[in-house]
Order: sequence, then structure tokens, then C-alpha cells
Amino acid sequence: MSSPAYAELVARLQRTHLFSTVGDLLGWDEQVNLPPGSADQRANQLALLAEMGHALSAEARNGELLRELETKPAPADGERVVVRQARRDYDRVTKLPAEFVREKAEHSSRAYHAWTAARAKNDFASYAPFLEKHLALAKREAGYLGKAAAPYDYFIDQNDPGLTGDAVGRLFAELKRELVPFVRSVLASPVKPPTGIFRGFPVDGQRLFLREVTERLGFDYRRGRIDVAVHPFCSGTGSDTRMTTRFTVDEPLDALFSSIHETGHGLYEQGLPVADAGTALGMHAGMGVHESQSRLWENQVARGRAFWKFFEPKFRAQFSAQTAALSSEDLYLAINAVVPTLIRVDADEVTYNLHIILRFELEKKLFSGELAVKDLPAAWREASRELVGLEPATDTEGVLQDVHWSGGAFGYFPSYCLGNMMAAQLWYAAQAALPQLEEDFARGDFSRLLGWLRTHVHAEGRRYDLLALVRKVTGEELSPRALLRYLRERYGTLYRV
Amino acid sequence: MSSPAYAELVARLQRTHLFSTVGDLLGWDEQVNLPPGSADQRANQLALLAEMGHALSAEARNGELLRELETKPAPADGERVVVRQARRDYDRVTKLPAEFVREKAEHSSRAYHAWTAARAKNDFASYAPFLEKHLALAKREAGYLGKAAAPYDYFIDQNDPGLTGDAVGRLFAELKRELVPFVRSVLASPVKPPTGIFRGFPVDGQRLFLREVTERLGFDYRRGRIDVAVHPFCSGTGSDTRMTTRFTVDEPLDALFSSIHETGHGLYEQGLPVADAGTALGMHAGMGVHESQSRLWENQVARGRAFWKFFEPKFRAQFSAQTAALSSEDLYLAINAVVPTLIRVDADEVTYNLHIILRFELEKKLFSGELAVKDLPAAWREASRELVGLEPATDTEGVLQDVHWSGGAFGYFPSYCLGNMMAAQLWYAAQAALPQLEEDFARGDFSRLLGWLRTHVHAEGRRYDLLALVRKVTGEELSPRALLRYLRERYGTLYRV
Repeated sequence: MSSPAYAELVARLQRTHLFSTVGDLLGWDEQVNLPPGSADQRANQLALLAEMGHALSAEARNGELLRELETKPAPADGERVVVRQARRDYDRVTKLPAEFVREKAEHSSRAYHAWTAARAKNDFASYAPFLEKHLALAKREAGYLGKAAAPYDYFIDQNDPGLTGDAVGRLFAELKRELVPFVRSVLASPVKPPTGIFRGFPVDGQRLFLREVTERLGFDYRRGRIDVAVHPFCSGTGSDTRMTTRFTVDEPLDALFSSIHETGHGLYEQGLPVADAGTALGMHAGMGVHESQSRLWENQVARGRAFWKFFEPKFRAQFSAQTAALSSEDLYLAINAVVPTLIRVDADEVTYNLHIILRFELEKKLFSGELAVKDLPAAWREASRELVGLEPATDTEGVLQDVHWSGGAFGYFPSYCLGNMMAAQLWYAAQAALPQLEEDFARGDFSRLLGWLRTHVHAEGRRYDLLALVRKVTGEELSPRALLRYLRERYGTLYRV
Repeated sequence: MSSPAYAELVARLQRTHLFSTVGDLLGWDEQVNLPPGSADQRANQLALLAEMGHALSAEARNGELLRELETKPAPADGERVVVRQARRDYDRVTKLPAEFVREKAEHSSRAYHAWTAARAKNDFASYAPFLEKHLALAKREAGYLGKAAAPYDYFIDQNDPGLTGDAVGRLFAELKRELVPFVRSVLASPVKPPTGIFRGFPVDGQRLFLREVTERLGFDYRRGRIDVAVHPFCSGTGSDTRMTTRFTVDEPLDALFSSIHETGHGLYEQGLPVADAGTALGMHAGMGVHESQSRLWENQVARGRAFWKFFEPKFRAQFSAQTAALSSEDLYLAINAVVPTLIRVDADEVTYNLHIILRFELEKKLFSGELAVKDLPAAWREASRELVGLEPATDTEGVLQDVHWSGGAFGYFPSYCLGNMMAAQLWYAAQAALPQLEEDFARGDFSRLLGWLRTHVHAEGRRYDLLALVRKVTGEELSPRALLRYLRERYGTLYRV
């Protein structure tokens, strides 16, 4: 039986969460529906909601309840998890001075505009002071939370609780050691993915096809939607999950795979315990775990032969004229094209990891002081040449390509690659637990995999952090070995290396 | 120079208003986008926003500022208007006990469900207790605001400040006296509107056509949208105006005229002073005035020959096959068909007024005690026969057809007809002020009319109530005479009576 204090805390957390879903909806609407002349009002609405949401989270009564609940042992394991996360969140909203939060928000807005201007003009120098200030703010922020000695660890932990910069560094070093030569060998293969084979795929047909795919994967459209926006994303919660995509008539795989990626995020949100929304029991387990779900469905599942055994005939039926001259092997090679690119968001799933390692290594050095902001462009070029095998001719294609740092989002990039590692580990664990899993896919049935993820990942909420969850579900520690095995099995075979 | 107290009050009103626009957006999204399984979360979000919005409106500091500002004469006329409206709103949110507000909200929800069930089963008796309780709640509400002696006047005044049940009664009696015989003569005319002449108008074509029409009328799509919903409505404010419509392939005039109607509401919202949003200076002047704007554009403008001189060729170009056999006169007669119907929302602009008079007369008697709820169906049938000339065979087509009373929305129906009266008065005033106005329309130019409305109606916000605004703009008292003149000119000529 829960104590009155626990019940009151949970009611308060749920109320705060419900309020935050209102802001999420306005953010979605801003990307999907907002008339261009209504941007000012929307900014004012979001600022007001942020202020009121902060006030709700920071109410002193929350602190009183937490102190009361922390003084006696929790009667149940779930309560301990909920109180621990609530303490984490409460400290973050109460230990950061309001003046600091305002300063960071204002600086983020200015830095974002400075970044867009610098990117357009290939002028890193004009952006450098903004990045320097963001680093200074980041160190102050870590200090307020008692992490002045290890500010980068603080940001890693914000995205993936329990991890540190050193732990990520060891994982990435191991991955890099084998991935860099593997990519070189794939690129040296005589097998080359075809180019220019997709022309004139009508948007309506693409929409119908991806709707069928995402429904079959298990996305529940009674509790969600997909719409068009400039950037694909997934927002909302399991009660109302809103995904976006974008269509290009000559790149049908772009909308399809970005939608499957967002569907992976959406399936996770829809699988979290709705009744526990607002508490750690109904909350996703961190950015890396979230990314493991999107990547597993996008890559391990939807780039595989079994998936296409079922969907290729449907794809050809929907686009008969456009695919008449296209061989099955060329389609499969196009789906699994490995082509190095300077731009992270355009990268294939093999080389993508190298882009992340690059950013992580530079970010870590920026925080340690080993690298000065003014030296970042040169360091980027060198790392890009070594890791990706390409050197950007301009900073626009190099250090200025990503939005993240302009908003002070440090320690975020690693989650993408940690998610890839976890996805591969889940992939082999699922296959071990569910014999003949890929035969399901070839029949268009993804329910056993989804059910397994529901039970072992989604239903757990934030009971476990990334490391503990991987350990619990796979019986192994988080490591890059499964990812390397998966990449070799899929791409080594396809490219005959 | 404004006092600090006035500046503080305005800042608080604007903040409360901004917060209310968030709830408006969620309401719009509920009708336009909400996945069916997400209704519970949306209800919870809206309830939370209502509670928090109420708390913002009722903050004691607002009362302190109002008392301070009321003790000294306002330095400017605008301030007096703002303080007066703020007092009105503050009293309403603070004088109604929280317990009463909750009871009314809960009863409205139950009564709404009872109404939908009763309407489906043609079972007024099952709904009667809910309506009785709504009447009792309404009288209690009027009592809390010091209007126990005249509860119906209180509700009329909520929708159209300054009006009373008796004043409306006199206007409607005068209208009825001439309108009932006029409708009889139109119906006796040998000129009959054609039926079944519209078949297979594709939705995409309808969408393009109404977009062109509404843009030409002046709706600013940089600050607004139109989407599809079950019921047409216009929500939001001038900063972000969201209209809806619905499409039926065999009824192209339905989407078109409902969109023009909502455009009239939207043009009003877009014309209110945005910088004064949240205060009386940026607020619409009441439901009747709002309706005068929608009706003026829908009826006086868009059902007229000059409008169609410009748009008929475009309509035929968009729907060439569908209109090939349609004569211009049949099109114009269909646009101005007078066909009595039992259902208010399906009524033409001539007989529509009779539906309103019917509801007003019954509503007034319910409040005075002259009519008991149990006797309402019989009274409805009798009034319908006398006024509309048709007697409903079922209560579903009679007393159960409208949603309003199930939500306790009394005193609301009259606004529709008051709006029609005002629209006709504005119509003649605009023509007097703007020579050859209809020649503009025939060229597709509506800017002079819109500009005139912007100056004389929209820009005034809530400086004047309906009666004062009509007096100021037209130099005459509100009366049904202009409406009767307009109906005779347009329909008397067309039907040769």
C-alpha cells in the first residue's frame, strides 16, 4: 500500500506531465500547421507554457514530499525508481537559478540565429564566440548541479543516465578500431550501389505505401498520426503520438525509411505504460534507448531481405511504371547503399557511426580544454579525413553542419551511436528468444518482435538505465561487438568483403 | 500617460488571454486532428487548462488593481472601456463558486451525452430532467452575479452586452409580423428553385475554388488556415485564425457558403487590433456583432448577383463538366433557394430567422416559468407549425435538434438573428458610404467593403456594444427593417412577389 505522500507526489508528477504534453502539441503544430505570420504568437505561447511548467515542477511541496519519501525505505521497488527520478528532475529545476535558465534560453536563441547565418556564409569565426559562451554556460550548469569537476559527464548523463564520457570513449574506441577498416574494405568492393534509379514516385503513392508499412510494423494510428514537416520527428506520448515525414518524388526511400525510423520511436512511446505517464515507470529510459528502438526497426528490420521479401511486391504494385526496369538486387543494394558523405544526416547506417565518433571526440576535447573553439574547424577537417575519409572544403559542410551545439545540446550526439549498439544487441537477443523470427517478417508479421520489445524494453519504462537494461535483456554488457557483427553479416555479405 | 496600475492590469489580461489561446488551439486540434483513441488525454488536457486559466483570471491582484483603477476617473476613454470589461470578466470568474463551476461542467457533460442518446432514440422524456437541472443551474448562476430577478436577461447580456429579453422580444415581434407573410408569399411563387442539379463535384476542385474565393474576400492565409472537420467553425484569434469546413461531392454550395460564413468570422478576428488582444480594445463586441460579420459576407455579399458575375465563370471553369447543362439563372436560384425545413442548420437565410424566433420565444417562457420543460415538445410543434409552416413528426427533428441547451447555453440563439439584422443595416450603410460598391464585387474586388468594416467595426474592438455600434455606424437604432428591406429586394425580386 502506497503512502499518502507517495500518492500525492505521483498526482503532482502526472499533472506536471499532462501540462507538458500541451507544450509538445504546440511544438508539433508549429512544425506542421503554423501559418507563417503566426510565429510570434507561437513563440509567446511556448515561452508562457515553459514558465508555467517550470513553476509547476519547482513547487516547494514537491521538495517536501521527496524529503519525506527519501527518509524511509520505499515499500516497493517501483516507488524507489519513481522517487529517484523525481529527485533528479526536481534538483534540475530548482538548482538552476531562474536567471541562469533565462540567460541560457536567450543565448540559445541568439546562437541559433548566429549559427544559421554562419552556415549560410561559411563563416565559423562569426559563430565561435557563441559556441564559446555556450561552453561556459554548460560548465556553469554542471556546477549548479554539483558536477563542476566533470561537466561533460553531466551532459552525457542528462541524455543517457549512468554513462560517462570515459565509458562512452572506451566503447567508441573499440568500435572505431574495427569499423574504420571495415568501411574501407566495403568501399573498395567491386560491388557498387546503383544511383539515379528512382524517378517520379508520386507523393500519394509514397504516402499509401508508408502507411501500410508503418501499420504492419504495429504503429497504432488510433493513438497517433503522421504528417508532413520540414524535418522528420516523433513527438507526443503514447496517448497521442505524432510523427512527421517529408516527400521527394525522386527519393522514395527517404520518406519511407525516415518514417520507419520515427515509427520505431513511436512504437516505444506507444508501448510505455500509459497509466504511469509522468513518473519514471511510464518514461522512456533515455536518448540512447529511444534511438535503439528507431534504429532497430529502420535498419535491422526494414533494410533486411526478409522485410523486402514481403514488401517488394507491394512496392512494385504501388509503383509499377517506376520500378519496371529495376532489378530486385539493385533495389536491395540501393536500400543498403554505403556511400561516404560529409553530411551526417545523409549518412548510411555503416558510416553514420563514424560521424558520431568524430563529434564525440571533439566535444570531449572542447570540455577538457584540450581543444580551443578557434581550432575546431581544423580539428574537424582532420578528424573527418581520418574517420570518414573525406575532408570538407568548407565549414558549412563541416563543423557548421549540425544544429545541436547552437542550442547548447552537448553530450547528445553519442546517444545515436549508443542506440545503434543497443539495437544490434537487441536484434541478436530477439532472434535467440524468437526462433525463425525473420520468417515472420517475410509474411509481413512483425508482432512477435514488437511483443518481445514491449515486454522487455517498453514495459520497463525508466526502471533501468541503458547499461542495466542491456544487461538485463541480453545478458551482456553494452558493447560494439553486436553492431560490428551485424554490419559484417549484412554489408560484408552484400559487398562480398 | 497610463498609470502603473493600468499597465499592470493590461499585462495580466494579455497573459491570461495568451494562455487561453493555447486551449483554443487544443480545441481546434481536437476537431481537426485528434486520433480517436486520444480523446481521454485531450479531455484531461483541456480540463487542466481550464482550471489553470480560471486561476489566472481570478488572481486577487486583478481585483486589487481594478479597485484602484475604479476609484479615480480614467485618463482616457480606452482605459475606461478596458477596466469596465475586465471588471465584468473578473466578477464572473470570482463570484461563481468553484463548486458551482464544477457542478455545471459535470452536468453539461452528462446532459450532452443524455441529449445525444435522446436524439438518437427520439426520447425527450429521458433528456427532460437534464434540461430542468440546467435551468435551475442557470438561475443559480444569474443569482451569483446579482441577476436573480432577471436570469434570462443575464444570459442574453452574456452573449450580447446591453440587450435584454424584452428588447430582443420587441425586435423579434416586429420582424415576425412581416417575415411570416413574406415567406408565405415566396413559397406561393411559381418560381421554384431547382433541385438535384449538383452531382460529382470533386473535393480537390471545391477546395481550390473556395480557397480562391476566401482569399479574394480578404482572408489572410499568412495568419490563418482552413481545414476539414465534422462541423464548420472558426477559432483562434487574429494572430492565428483557424477555420474549418466539410465537403460533400453532391453539395458544392455547402462547403462554399459555410467557408464564406467562417471567413466572415475570420475577417473580423483578423481585423481586431492585435496589439490590444486580451483587453476590450482588441476583443470582439459580442456574439451578435460577430454573426453580423459572417452573415454579411455569406449572404448580402456572396449570394448576390455581382459576386457571381465575377465568380460564375471561375466556378464553371473549375467544374466544366458538372456545370455544362446548368443555366446561370438556375445556379443563382439554387444559391438563393428558399425551402422551409424543420432543421435550423439546413435553413436558408430567409426562413432561418423564424427558427431563431421560435427558440427565443420558448427559451424566454422556460425562464419565466410560463412553460414547463415537460410541455416543451408540444409547444415546439405548435410554434414550428405557426412560424416555419412545418410540424416535426418526431422530437429528434424538433426540440432535440440543437446541441446548445444541453450545454446550458441559454440566450445564445438570439445572436444569430440579431446578427442578421445588423448585417443588413451595415449593408445599406456601406452602400451609402461606398458608391458603386457592387461594381467592385463584379470585378472580384472586395477591398473597399473590407476596409470600411475594418475601420467602422473591427478596429473598434469592444468599445461599443451591439446597440451602440449599430447606432454609431449606421446612424440608426438596431431594428429588423433593413433586414426586411434586404430580403424583399433580393428574394421578392427573384421570386417575383
